[in-house]
Amino acid sequence: MPVRVVGFDGDDTLWHSETRFHVTQREFGELVRRHVPDADVATRLAEVELQNLSIYGYGVKSFTLSMLETAIELTEARIPASDLDVILGWGKRMLMEPTELLDGVEETLKGLAGRFDMLLITKGDLFDQESKLARSGLGENFSGVEILSEKDVDAYGAIFKRRAIRPQDFVMVGNSLRSDVLPAVTLGAYAVHIPYEVTWQHEHVPDEQLPREGWRRVASIRELPGVLASL
Amino acid sequence: MPVRVVGFDGDDTLWHSETRFHVTQREFGELVRRHVPDADVATRLAEVELQNLSIYGYGVKSFTLSMLETAIELTEARIPASDLDVILGWGKRMLMEPTELLDGVEETLKGLAGRFDMLLITKGDLFDQESKLARSGLGENFSGVEILSEKDVDAYGAIFKRRAIRPQDFVMVGNSLRSDVLPAVTLGAYAVHIPYEVTWQHEHVPDEQLPREGWRRVASIRELPGVLASL
Repeated sequence: MPVRVVGFDGDDTLWHSETRFHVTQREFGELVRRHVPDADVATRLAEVELQNLSIYGYGVKSFTLSMLETAIELTEARIPASDLDVILGWGKRMLMEPTELLDGVEETLKGLAGRFDMLLITKGDLFDQESKLARSGLGENFSGVEILSEKDVDAYGAIFKRRAIRPQDFVMVGNSLRSDVLPAVTLGAYAVHIPYEVTWQHEHVPDEQLPREGWRRVASIRELPGVLASL
Repeated sequence: MPVRVVGFDGDDTLWHSETRFHVTQREFGELVRRHVPDADVATRLAEVELQNLSIYGYGVKSFTLSMLETAIELTEARIPASDLDVILGWGKRMLMEPTELLDGVEETLKGLAGRFDMLLITKGDLFDQESKLARSGLGENFSGVEILSEKDVDAYGAIFKRRAIRPQDFVMVGNSLRSDVLPAVTLGAYAVHIPYEVTWQHEHVPDEQLPREGWRRVASIRELPGVLASL
């Protein structure tokens, strides 16, 4: 199979994202527990986020709104507005932070860019993702950028159709089994899974739901050129 | 010039959007003035929104976050969390409201869909725009959907390139001089301006900056088939 097009996930595949959420989540827990010492803040926040997913979608703005809602609910509206202002500030900080690339990303992408047609295929907030890509300095490696509200079989199928990509010519690279590996393999493409140190709860996939073939796992993006050469 | 492709703006061209913002803004003003009777809430909110545009981008979630920030700032954090919870609820209400089509939209699009290649080209929050389109029932009229973080010359140029559209074959239809008419006409395409009853301050364009040719204004989308036939 001569791979022609390589799709890359962005968050936690090319640049750190989940770490930023975890840092803020820890600060958030401490802030709320100052008012409600026994609250299981992390669990309630995860529930609120999941409830709001169909209204807000993914991204930092959605996360910020869910933190505010959780803080008000858990404190029974006793939290002062000044603390909610601190939460608003965390959201802005996350949106403005420099894009921090994962180890090996810059060199690997540069090395592959001449040999493959490369697409960035990310999920999340349009504005935030574009802004992160711009700050990443990786933009020139990609011939196209697709920012999706959901990375499922239909969304990948639409990209293949729009860009006239045959699944057998495509490899998807990402840290998410659910959003990168599963839909690509389901459509007959190959996938390379690069696990990230931290994985969002919502992204877990039980082992028995994983395809047996059509993908492999590597520890670092540095191994990607070798994998692509072997296909 | 045989027009081949017609691009349609979404918000306030096909469906009501600004009205929802105005309704919420009025309620917001009343809420904040309960704590600060003399506050010029509308002006301060507009300033905060503009300041936050480069961090949040457009959309209801951004608007909600800016309302919360404005409320906390104008009340010097004296506003109770229960009132901020009301504001969070307004944001959700705006995101979940049914998509209310403008007069004549449904029939006009249906009539044009067989004769032209039609694209939806909107600005704003990816998730919210996709959700509104899905709820609008208009989806099947469009051969493509482009949701942009900013509708400027570069963004239209990228669409023309990606979709192999020659500007002279393209007509852009929308309520915004700044986001629909100006960039399209600048690139050599034609534009049809359909003013909306309410226009956001940020969208105003001084008369002397308007192109003299390459566009016209109609009062209703019902006039569009006649205009397209005359080109």
